This record gives sequence, structure tokens and C-alpha cells, in this order.
Amino acid sequence: MNDCQFSLEFKVRDYECDIQGIVNNAVYLNYLEHARHEFLLSRGISFAELSKKKINLVVIRTELDYKSPLRSGDEFSIEVNFEQISPLCFCFNQTIYKRPDRKLVMNAKVFGTGINEKGRPCIPEEIRKNFIELSN
Amino acid sequence: MNDCQFSLEFKVRDYECDIQGIVNNAVYLNYLEHARHEFLLSRGISFAELSKKKINLVVIRTELDYKSPLRSGDEFSIEVNFEQISPLCFCFNQTIYKRPDRKLVMNAKVFGTGINEKGRPCIPEEIRKNFIELSN
Amino acid sequence: MNDCQFSLEFKVRDYECDIQGIVNNAVYLNYLEHARHEFLLSRGISFAELSKKKINLVVIRTELDYKSPLRSGDEFSIEVNFEQISPLCFCFNQTIYKRPDRKLVMNAKVFGTGINEKGRPCIPEEIRKNFIELSN
Amino acid sequence: MNDCQFSLEFKVRDYECDIQGIVNNAVYLNYLEHARHEFLLSRGISFAELSKKKINLVVIRTELDYKSPLRSGDEFSIEVNFEQISPLCFCFNQTIYKRPDRKLVMNAKVFGTGINEKGRPCIPEEIRKNFIELSN
Repeated sequence: MNDCQFSLEFKVRDYECDIQGIVNNAVYLNYLEHARHEFLLSRGISFAELSKKKINLVVIRTELDYKSPLRSGDEFSIEVNFEQISPLCFCFNQTIYKRPDRKLVMNAKVFGTGINEKGRPCIPEEIRKNFIELSN
Repeated sequence: MNDCQFSLEFKVRDYECDIQGIVNNAVYLNYLEHARHEFLLSRGISFAELSKKKINLVVIRTELDYKSPLRSGDEFSIEVNFEQISPLCFCFNQTIYKRPDRKLVMNAKVFGTGINEKGRPCIPEEIRKNFIELSN
Repeated sequence: MNDCQFSLEFKVRDYECDIQGIVNNAVYLNYLEHARHEFLLSRGISFAELSKKKINLVVIRTELDYKSPLRSGDEFSIEVNFEQISPLCFCFNQTIYKRPDRKLVMNAKVFGTGINEKGRPCIPEEIRKNFIELSN
Repeated sequence: MNDCQFSLEFKVRDYECDIQGIVNNAVYLNYLEHARHEFLLSRGISFAELSKKKINLVVIRTELDYKSPLRSGDEFSIEVNFEQISPLCFCFNQTIYKRPDRKLVMNAKVFGTGINEKGRPCIPEEIRKNFIELSN
């Protein structure tokens, strides 16, 4: 393990692969989201609970660099680092490595913000306390 | 209609929406892929047939800007323009608009290349003839 | 067209196909759900609106007979008939046919009920008026 | 653990949940497929490798009884038992339990057969050796 803030292990499931026999390009966004939500949970924040309170974390921009494909049976890990970009924007830097050789699969930047009950952009208190203030 | 090279109409399906009641961020990549493949088909190129011949079109980079969410029942269209970037890289510029008011939903750039039977990057003959030479 | 209560047309999207080059067996449940929800909409019932009112239509049993596979580019239609089974249970009989030759793809029975705000089984008023009483 | 032939543990991922806040009914077929393929792998059979050899295992009928829903964050296990039904048909009996209290989530029967290179139904040698003969 290295010094990322959070890491999660996965195994490719066959239904995630497409006609080409590789994981479909959209499925990586599923993987990345699950890793982010588990990262949030590891700091006490439930995406589902937040959304019940009408506080929605939303993705505003995604950059994905596909470096090598994943195939049936492959095991991989996703490493995640949180970064504050501006008062109303944060970014999850996420990297996917195949196991056990750490071959690079994907570099991803997922930019997000919060939307409060009134529909206005905000950084939810939970994110501020558990991510932003911790890193200062 | 405007002067894009290709346009396809969709309607949100409920299973594509998540806990927040909006289309999940990964589903947009499904929409974008389907629009590209129909664009290819409109010029006589079948993604599935290509992949049977071991010629694989692959995505190497994606940039997605989420501008406003789609919800249950929304109708929308995806407009697509092909652009050659370099000898071995092309880009599909894709924009999603909600109908009927053309509210902007997403701007996307999807960069791709081809991989031939030997695993080497290439621009497949079919792409060259039907996209690149046509635009010169 | 024949004398079913509702029919909806689809086209296979490539991301719905798996390693075997055919539509993955789970995707049929997506198709069937979308056809049912459009059937409901055609009678003025929005699944999403119902669920906002804490009235949830839920599937309790599904029987699927896979007769022949769908592949990339196939066009098909889903025919739906509603049937009341018991005071608290209804069934959507759904059949998938490939177009244009009406080759049988799947026979499906999807049994459902409603769950009211208190978590108790019920037949929502909307279903009673627009489906059950109409067929008496 | 009890005396099933194979068991696999899962955790619900948020993108698998729909507007109602519960795992979408189609996603259970993904879970069930992944459990079956891991069961096959545990006996040395790769679904992906089989399909490269043009030997396809296919689902011909599915019966699903939804007993209670899964939600964001739920952990569950799927227990699988193989049963030969007739010379050309086998069945995977699969049960989903929520953890840690083993609340019943779903009973499923998934009937399948093999299709050989010539498109004819068959029981692949690999299934015969590792499942059928073992149970005699």
C-alpha cells in the first residue's frame, strides 16, 4: 500500500464486460463512484443518508484517462485522494491499478459540489469537517 | 435541428435513475456510446462487426461536463461531431440537450483510437474512408 | 399489431451485450421494467411520482423464459397485458418479439403489488381505477 | 456457514439502487450471475474462456421470488446449489440472505444449458466432470 487517503479492492464481474471482452467504458464510472462512496463512509458520511436530507453531492466534471483495459476475472484497486479546488468545488483524484502487478488502468479526476435543500451549491458541513478541515 | 453531423433522440428510463432521483452519472457514458455507435452505423460501420474482425475501437480519454441533470421521463437528444485530432487519435464532440427547450445537459469529448488484430494502434480503414476523408 | 393492451419498440444498444455477444440476461429485466412504466404512463400513472408520494409498486415474483437471444442492432417490441391475480397481487404478462419477423425472444410474467406509506401491501388507487376497474 | 455448495459475499453499491432507494429488481440478476460464475471458477471453469471456445452457457428460464429489499450499504451473501434436471438442463438454486441476520432477500432458480460450436444444446464436458459426476 502507498500513501493515498483511501483504497478499495474490486474484482471484475463478467456482466461488466462487453462485446469486445473488456470492461465497458461506462462501468469505470460505477467503480469510481463506489470507491468514493466507501471513502465517504470511512469518514462517517453516508451518500444515501445525505440525499434523504435533500443534501445532494453531485458530479460537475469528470476527466478519465483509459490506460489499459480490465478483463473478466481481473482484480484491481482504486486509490482515492480528496482535494479542495475552490470554495464550492472539490475533486477526487482516483487511480485504478490492476493487481497484483500495479499496472496502471485509469487516471480519473472527478470534480463535485454539494446542492442544498434550496437547490443552491454548497459544501455540506459533513464534507467540510471530515475532509477539508482535516487536511488543513 | 442544427448543423451537427449526427443527432439521436432518447428518453430517460426509470432504471437509469438513482437514489437522488436523477440519471446516475455513469449512465451518460452509456447514452454517449449508443449515440456514437448509431453515428458509425449511419455511415455503414458496425462496432460489433468490427470487433468480430478483431479491430477494436477504444476510448482513450473522456471529458464530461455535467451542466444540468436528467430525470424520470425526460426526453433529450445527443448531437455528435467527429474531429480528427492527430494521425492516430480522433474525437467525438457530443452535446446532450433536453427537449423540447434545448436546455444544456452535458458537454462531452470522447477521444478514441483503433487497435488492430496485432494489438497496435491504428485508424481502421472504415473510419478513414467514412469520416476523415469525407471531411477533407 | 395485435390485440395486446400496450406495446413498445426498442433497439438493442451495444453496451447491453456481454462477452458472448448477446444481450446479457439481466438487461431483459431493464427492458421489461421500462415497457411496464411506459404502459403505466400511457394511463396517466408515473412510477416516479408515485414513489415520491411514498407509494411504491414492487415486484414480488418474476418468471422469465428465454427463447432466443437478442444481438447488437436487433430491433424488438415488448407487448404487455395487465391481469389481476388476487386482491393484493397483479401480473404483467410480457412478451418480447424480434422485429420485423416476430421471432419469439422471451415470455415473462412479472407479479407485483403496492406498498403504502405505512409499509403495508395495497393496490394503489391509481392502479385500481386505470387497470382493474377498466377490465371489469 | 451452512451446507450449500458455494457461497459468495457482496455489499450493495449505491449505483445499484433506484428512485425508490432500493436495489433495482434487474440488478439481482447481475448478483446471481456473478455468484454462479464464481462458483464455476471455484471448480476450475471460466465462463469467459468457455465462450472464447464458442461453448456458451446460456440461461433458459429464471424464477425469482423477491422476499425483502436490499438498500444502500447492505451486506448479503448468495448461496448456490447445482442440480441436474434432465440430460440437457441444469439448475442453479440460489438464495440471497442479508447479513448478519440471514433475513431472506430472494429465492431464485436459474435453469441453463450449454450451446456448442454448432449451435446445438449440450452439456459441456467441463460441467459434466465438475458438477454432475461429482454429485453422483
